Amino acid sequence: NSKLKIFSLNSNQELAEEISEHAGIPLGKSSVTHFSDGEIQINIEESIRGYDVFIVQSTSQPVNENLMELLIMIDAVKRASARTVNVVMPYYGYARQDRKARSREPITAKLVANLLETAGATRVIVLDLHAPQIQGFFDILIDHLVAVPLLSDYFLNESGIDLENVIIVSPDHGGVTRARKMADRLKAPIAIIDKRRPRPNVAEVMNIVGNVEGKTAIIIDDIIDTAGTISIAASALIESGAKEVYACCTHPVLSGPAVQRINDSVIKELIITNSIALPEEKKSPKIKQLSVARLLAETIVRVHEQKSVSTLFD
Amino acid sequence: NSKLKIFSLNSNQELAEEISEHAGIPLGKSSVTHFSDGEIQINIEESIRGYDVFIVQSTSQPVNENLMELLIMIDAVKRASARTVNVVMPYYGYARQDRKARSREPITAKLVANLLETAGATRVIVLDLHAPQIQGFFDILIDHLVAVPLLSDYFLNESGIDLENVIIVSPDHGGVTRARKMADRLKAPIAIIDKRRPRPNVAEVMNIVGNVEGKTAIIIDDIIDTAGTISIAASALIESGAKEVYACCTHPVLSGPAVQRINDSVIKELIITNSIALPEEKKSPKIKQLSVARLLAETIVRVHEQKSVSTLFD
Ligand SMILES: Nc1ncnc2c1ncn2[C@@H]1O[C@H](COP(=O)(O)O)[C@@H](O)[C@H]1O
Ligand SMILES: Nc1ncnc2c1ncn2[C@@H]1O[C@H](COP(=O)(O)O)[C@@H](O)[C@H]1O
Repeated sequence: NSKLKIFSLNSNQELAEEISEHAGIPLGKSSVTHFSDGEIQINIEESIRGYDVFIVQSTSQPVNENLMELLIMIDAVKRASARTVNVVMPYYGYARQDRKARSREPITAKLVANLLETAGATRVIVLDLHAPQIQGFFDILIDHLVAVPLLSDYFLNESGIDLENVIIVSPDHGGVTRARKMADRLKAPIAIIDKRRPRPNVAEVMNIVGNVEGKTAIIIDDIIDTAGTISIAASALIESGAKEVYACCTHPVLSGPAVQRINDSVIKELIITNSIALPEEKKSPKIKQLSVARLLAETIVRVHEQKSVSTLFD
Repeated sequence: NSKLKIFSLNSNQELAEEISEHAGIPLGKSSVTHFSDGEIQINIEESIRGYDVFIVQSTSQPVNENLMELLIMIDAVKRASARTVNVVMPYYGYARQDRKARSREPITAKLVANLLETAGATRVIVLDLHAPQIQGFFDILIDHLVAVPLLSDYFLNESGIDLENVIIVSPDHGGVTRARKMADRLKAPIAIIDKRRPRPNVAEVMNIVGNVEGKTAIIIDDIIDTAGTISIAASALIESGAKEVYACCTHPVLSGPAVQRINDSVIKELIITNSIALPEEKKSPKIKQLSVARLLAETIVRVHEQKSVSTLFD
């Protein structure tokens, strides 16, 4: 791999190391430290003149710190005469702020896209954006990878569940397309959880569209954040006669009470990816993490070699 | 003041309130909170359509949090149809990263200028940039205010020192112009501290250019960060025969051991401004804070009324 360099920032070093192993090249040398006043100091410690540079960083918590680290690194790489500046963002923070839901709100997902471009990124590689429309927020090149194949393969090959008896569940209307894709791979039917509030200030009702009776239900979502919805959805499925409930998602944000809620829920197992690093205190016997390193490494190498990556997208 | 609105973010609310009092208009209503995962959520709670909006925020510690807050607020204000989006940044973080001092470093001061523009700022109002050249990093309008008059007035009118016997000291070569301006106002001579390292790995020597014997020395700097240099400079002045040493600066970064060093030093009094808010634990009987609120309020009102602000600059 001539003239290809991969750098890791601080959000997800383990994933970056795995990517570098799969790609067969060592991580580039750089130092990211802080001055006494908390300002980020970055130095790239080897020549990258004329290289295709890939910077691996998820803008997960602490999101503002990780985003600024990324922007400053992009600036440094650009000024060091890299040929291309490619940002590998397995998790794209602020993706849920992708429209004005109320008046006078920002559209931070678009702001972030603009900031990356302004800093000097020439391409971004992302995984399961909260809304696929965010691709259109960029004028630079964007590759949008999906984790459905990885998650589906786990259920097909490793979970040990009875594949004849599965139903894939979307936890809301926005996730039906994703659930449909997984259902195709597992040759299973789908159900949808139809949340609605009968009157203002009355608790939401979870109505299940589809017959889950006696089935192994697999809920699929893109992000699990506080895990409130998914825990309640799992209970609703059991109440509607499901035999057991699995859950899976691409991005384990798992903020606040999330892990406790998962542990306390009727969910049998939660399958996640390592798009966001899981700190030690969030690990749980119920949570199983799959790696997207091979998918990202393959994308990086193909982009560098100017080969098609479209077969990686389904 | 019709169609003028001032908003405060979280870095320096006290200063923003003082500015709003001087300007004679209440602060605009907005909420800046965090989602469970640490992402910033901003909502502007009153109409600003067609207004000149001024956002007060210093990018002091926590610099990355404060900068992202500012960028997201700019985006929200822009999308709320403000006529102009003016950023009042009493302290401009990352200003010392204003050039490539070594190969493959970022130029973060320039990156920040680009980010502000990209987010949608149409004008910035800053105070004592670390290097005046940073003005040229912007393609949007910039007003560069200085604190020398405010600091000088304190020594002239309130300090009680013998004005016949003062010498103004620049702690390095870069600060001579600033020292010269203060010296003109106090009708005093100047001295310069000439730091040099005789050989690599040998301690720096502080050589004082100018005669300080028997004088009241006033050291002036733009930023005091860890206060290492200024404490040592003060001792060197006393060793060279100065009667007493005062120090002043615009931006009290005061990180790490700074306050302890000031307290332990021979410095009699340190005069600072409130461009950066001083948390309770950094307060000290030796440190006196002057307010730049009136200067900023006057600038805001004049900009809004399309009057010249140049008389505020000297
Ligand atoms: N970090 C976040 N955590 C929780 N909610 C968010 C976050 N960012 C945006 N939102 C809200 O989530 C909603 C969008 O989510 P969705 O309807 O799933 O696309 C918007 O109303 C946002 O106000
Ligand atoms: N936040 C910071 N704290 C301490 N030093 C810094 C900071 N930012 C930049 N620098 C360094 O300070 C030097 C510039 O300071 P100056 O020579 O005073 O303009 C550069 O070599 C930078 O590497």
